[in-house]
Formats: sequence, C-alpha cells, structure tokens
Amino acid sequence: METPGNLEAHRVDGSRPSDAAVDLYRRLSADIAAGVGVVSSTLRNRDYAATVTGFLSVSYDPPTMLVSLYAESRIGEAVEEAGVWALSLLSGKHQGAANWLASPGTPLQGLLAQVPFRRGPATGSAILDGALAYFELRTVSVHQAATHLIIVGEVLSMGTDAAPAEAPDPLIHFGSSYRRLAP
Amino acid sequence: METPGNLEAHRVDGSRPSDAAVDLYRRLSADIAAGVGVVSSTLRNRDYAATVTGFLSVSYDPPTMLVSLYAESRIGEAVEEAGVWALSLLSGKHQGAANWLASPGTPLQGLLAQVPFRRGPATGSAILDGALAYFELRTVSVHQAATHLIIVGEVLSMGTDAAPAEAPDPLIHFGSSYRRLAP
Repeated sequence: METPGNLEAHRVDGSRPSDAAVDLYRRLSADIAAGVGVVSSTLRNRDYAATVTGFLSVSYDPPTMLVSLYAESRIGEAVEEAGVWALSLLSGKHQGAANWLASPGTPLQGLLAQVPFRRGPATGSAILDGALAYFELRTVSVHQAATHLIIVGEVLSMGTDAAPAEAPDPLIHFGSSYRRLAP
Repeated sequence: METPGNLEAHRVDGSRPSDAAVDLYRRLSADIAAGVGVVSSTLRNRDYAATVTGFLSVSYDPPTMLVSLYAESRIGEAVEEAGVWALSLLSGKHQGAANWLASPGTPLQGLLAQVPFRRGPATGSAILDGALAYFELRTVSVHQAATHLIIVGEVLSMGTDAAPAEAPDPLIHFGSSYRRLAP
C-alpha cells in the first residue's frame, strides 16, 4: 500500500465523510500501536470472546477500564446484555488465539475448544491461560459512539499468569500486523 | 518490583476499593502496551499539550476517536472547554518530547518552545512535526468515568509526516517505560 509522506491534511467536512476520507482514516489509524487483548462474556451458558485492541485503563480509583466494541457484533451485544465481562492481555504466545478470535466468521459452537482458559471467579467469563494480566469487570456505563459501543467497567477481580522470572512479551498490533517489542 | 506469578484473583468488593487493590491495579494495568500520542488544544491563545496513551480509534465511519483525560488536569479542562483538539502519534524520535509533555509540573509558558510543531488547519491545535499520523477532532460527546473524562471526537482533518521509504517506528509505552517494536 502506498504510504504518503507529508500528506496534505485531509479535511472531513459536512455531515458525511467521503469514501476517500474513510479510506485515509483506516490507513492512518492503523498506525496506532496497541496491546492485544481478548474480551469475553458468558450469556445463557454460551461463551463469547473476541480479540480487541480498542481498550484502555481509564482510572486507578476505582479501577476502571473501557472497551470499544462494534455495536452490531455478537461480542458487543453479549457484553452489553451480560453486564459483566473479562479482559485478558495477550502475550506473544497467544498469536494463534488472537488470530482465531479475530475472525468475524468464527462459529460460536466450539469457539474456545482450542483456546486454553478457565473461568474468572467474579463473573464466570473466560480468562485465557497465560494472560499477562486479566481483569473481570462489571459495566457501569455504555455510550454509543458512531458504529461502536464504549463500555466502561469497574474492575471486580484481577490477576496475572506472568512468570516472575520472565521478561513480559506483550502481543502488539501495529500497521495491520502482530508485532513484538524490541528487547 | 516483585511480579506475582499466578496471583490469586484479587476481588474488589463493595463501594471502596482497598489501597492494595488500587496498587495491584496500577501494577497490572501497566502491562497494557500502548502507542504514545500527544493531545493538544488551544484555548484563549494558549497552547495545552500532554503525552497520552489513553486513546483509541473508535469508528471508521464517520472517523471517530476517543481520549481519556484526568478530569482535573489542565489538558482535560482545556480540551473539554475548547471543543476541538488534535492527536499526534509519536515515533521513536519523539521520546524527549514525550517525556517533557508527560511531566505534571510542566510550565504552560513555553510549553512547546522546544517541541517542533505547526498548527493544524482545522483547529489551530499543535501538531508535532514528524508525527506518524495526526488527527484534528471536534468533540461530539464527553462522558465522566471515575476520575477521568472520556472525550469522543469526530475527525476533521488528518495526515502523516511519515517518510514513505522508512519503516514506521512507533513509540510504545509498556511496563512504565518507553519501548520500540522489534523489526
């Protein structure tokens, strides 16, 4: 893909962005480096889980995070309806799971059959084994923003599977690829 | 700092988290790898700018982003009041600027004196020279979440200073340090 240098700032004007503006935004926003996580929730005895990069720590006190999920997605609907959810932070070892849970066509039946996990004590949501850190949350507010739901949650439980002696190796998403940190 | 392995999930219960829960959350949430940006705004002819890792691309259509800012901070108040702002994505070359604009005690006078920048065409907010990508935004909604404001904006203008021939080198924050991607 052509990468522009010193591209003239592209104005998005009026109420509808042009297709060109949306395409340019897709390209430029891919340069937001982000850690990779899996958001999960359980609804009517069914597990929902999806790879995400759109999450943040919002506040330390009380511990509060947010995740941005496509409003029409299964995971968006499940997290909103369940009201409790988990976030697992992935390491380099999770790249296979990250790919699997990022596919939009993943079947719900057997979704986690190949993904080692256990259930969080506070919510029953799936927590991926080996997570650098994991958090269970209860939704405190939901905000619609364009095509997405911004779901803000308070942390109910947290922990880590990281081995004390190993340097952590977070899985990173950048420029539409999975990457790792330089040592 | 001691890093726990297979730490027992720590419950945060009732209305007030314990100091231990807040401390544990600080430690675990530091494992969220994130690209580094600078949020800026101009209010009454004064420039405000701060290093941030709490930002996301929310939606492609229309291009929409959010930033989470401490509600009591100068930058939080300035962005909220100005209603327009910019986000510059930093590269490895910006580490000095990132450190400078992350200090809470930075004086407002001369804040950007040592930081090469120009003004965005849509908002007049400072855009750092050499940004991997930059976005100017107009706030569409503001949500309080614990100690922070979640400010959602629609993109008004965007571009990049990245040289087409160079592999992009995003500045990453992980584990309380600045890091780079492995090649």
